[in-house]
Amino acid sequence: MATEYTYEGISVGDKASFSKTISEADVSGFAGITGDFNPVHVNQVFAEKSQFKKRIAHGMLSASLISTVLGTRLPGANTIYLSQEVKFTAPVYLGDTLTAEVEVTEKNDKKKILTLKTTVVNQEGKTVVDGQAKVMKT
Amino acid sequence: MATEYTYEGISVGDKASFSKTISEADVSGFAGITGDFNPVHVNQVFAEKSQFKKRIAHGMLSASLISTVLGTRLPGANTIYLSQEVKFTAPVYLGDTLTAEVEVTEKNDKKKILTLKTTVVNQEGKTVVDGQAKVMKT
Amino acid sequence: MATEYTYEGISVGDKASFSKTISEADVSGFAGITGDFNPVHVNQVFAEKSQFKKRIAHGMLSASLISTVLGTRLPGANTIYLSQEVKFTAPVYLGDTLTAEVEVTEKNDKKKILTLKTTVVNQEGKTVVDGQAKVMKT
Amino acid sequence: MATEYTYEGISVGDKASFSKTISEADVSGFAGITGDFNPVHVNQVFAEKSQFKKRIAHGMLSASLISTVLGTRLPGANTIYLSQEVKFTAPVYLGDTLTAEVEVTEKNDKKKILTLKTTVVNQEGKTVVDGQAKVMKT
Repeated sequence: MATEYTYEGISVGDKASFSKTISEADVSGFAGITGDFNPVHVNQVFAEKSQFKKRIAHGMLSASLISTVLGTRLPGANTIYLSQEVKFTAPVYLGDTLTAEVEVTEKNDKKKILTLKTTVVNQEGKTVVDGQAKVMKT
Repeated sequence: MATEYTYEGISVGDKASFSKTISEADVSGFAGITGDFNPVHVNQVFAEKSQFKKRIAHGMLSASLISTVLGTRLPGANTIYLSQEVKFTAPVYLGDTLTAEVEVTEKNDKKKILTLKTTVVNQEGKTVVDGQAKVMKT
Repeated sequence: MATEYTYEGISVGDKASFSKTISEADVSGFAGITGDFNPVHVNQVFAEKSQFKKRIAHGMLSASLISTVLGTRLPGANTIYLSQEVKFTAPVYLGDTLTAEVEVTEKNDKKKILTLKTTVVNQEGKTVVDGQAKVMKT
Repeated sequence: MATEYTYEGISVGDKASFSKTISEADVSGFAGITGDFNPVHVNQVFAEKSQFKKRIAHGMLSASLISTVLGTRLPGANTIYLSQEVKFTAPVYLGDTLTAEVEVTEKNDKKKILTLKTTVVNQEGKTVVDGQAKVMKT
């Protein structure tokens, strides 16, 4: 079963993370599911002429790793995702290894709502996604 | 090829959209790419006992359809995704047909940055994702 | 990061599990990766005439959920998979929800080898895969 | 259609095989279907620091090629997979070309059960999976 915390068992400052390498297959698959065939993701020739010089992963793919941590690690199952704000701060290239991390920054005990700082960094420690989530833990 | 506008060719009020039905294969695939095996998405038995009563799609999958519109329709290729804010306002079930729509609400001519209202609605017209994006058009 | 135990932190009797619903997309994808296009998995017409009366999932797909538990939960990362014995005791149909469970039954402290009872059950509690694994925890 | 033998048409000593190159897409896809995101399979940075020095394929992916031979070549369609024992004897790296081979070693005519020696070797002839299967041919 997925890890699961109770609302009471979670404290401000608690952290969790998830890591994976973003393969070409992941980017192809993400394009296929979402329909986001922006040429900078799926067209090597186009990408080489762009400012990025090579294909980059979808920003929302990187951002989705935050959901992975929230839904499977902290708070885990029975978390209701209320909102997510993300800034895309650096490009992610095929083959980059990303680590999504969430940290609880605030608890609203009345509504059982948690605010979390959410970041995704690459293998060099550079932040590629920065933002904040709000979730309700039932 | 993707549609492509110049920055100057885009006006406040311009709109574009993208629609697709979210299949079980999409949800399985999205879990597989992101690692988000939250049981409410991939475990039918768990989902039936949850408040949702059946499996729901990942919120970030629905939100990613916004990126599809931005990167392939308006503004289209050569758009740099700067940020995205989303609120998840209603659950999305397997088989739902979603329409993501973006509308330009503000232009910052100096920085060539556009602000867009971004929404995703289901086949009944119910808003499932609400928010705002900022992009730079190069 | 994946859960990780030290060899010393694991005791005989420790258990862990992983659950998911086996979708048609999973079976199609598994066939595509392995090349196992046995008609009972990918041919609806053939399957209806077979003793199973409908399409069944690949036995090795069900068995692979055992590896998921071993490699991500107990013992978790840095586990070396030495061997697996499985008996396929009942068919798995598309839409079945499986739970793979492992239980430590023996420790060989000299070689740091663990023996685990490994089972996969469906949503009705029926055992579909039964067997035993040996792993080394580094 | 898959090749199909009758039980009587199969003799001890009969062999069949199936070969394919294991791509990064195969490993990403297998993780996505099974949920096995063990970092040695999906995290390049982690894998480089492990004893394997680079990402390896899931052992059960290699083992599943045995099922491909059994279900599509020998004995082919209408084979009931009863059991499989595997030893994982060497790591499989992305880009390795595997050949799964099965050889009939015993026939139980009363129960129509075949025992087969099952091996998977890489492009250098090194055995990566070794074991035995039992199947019933209907």
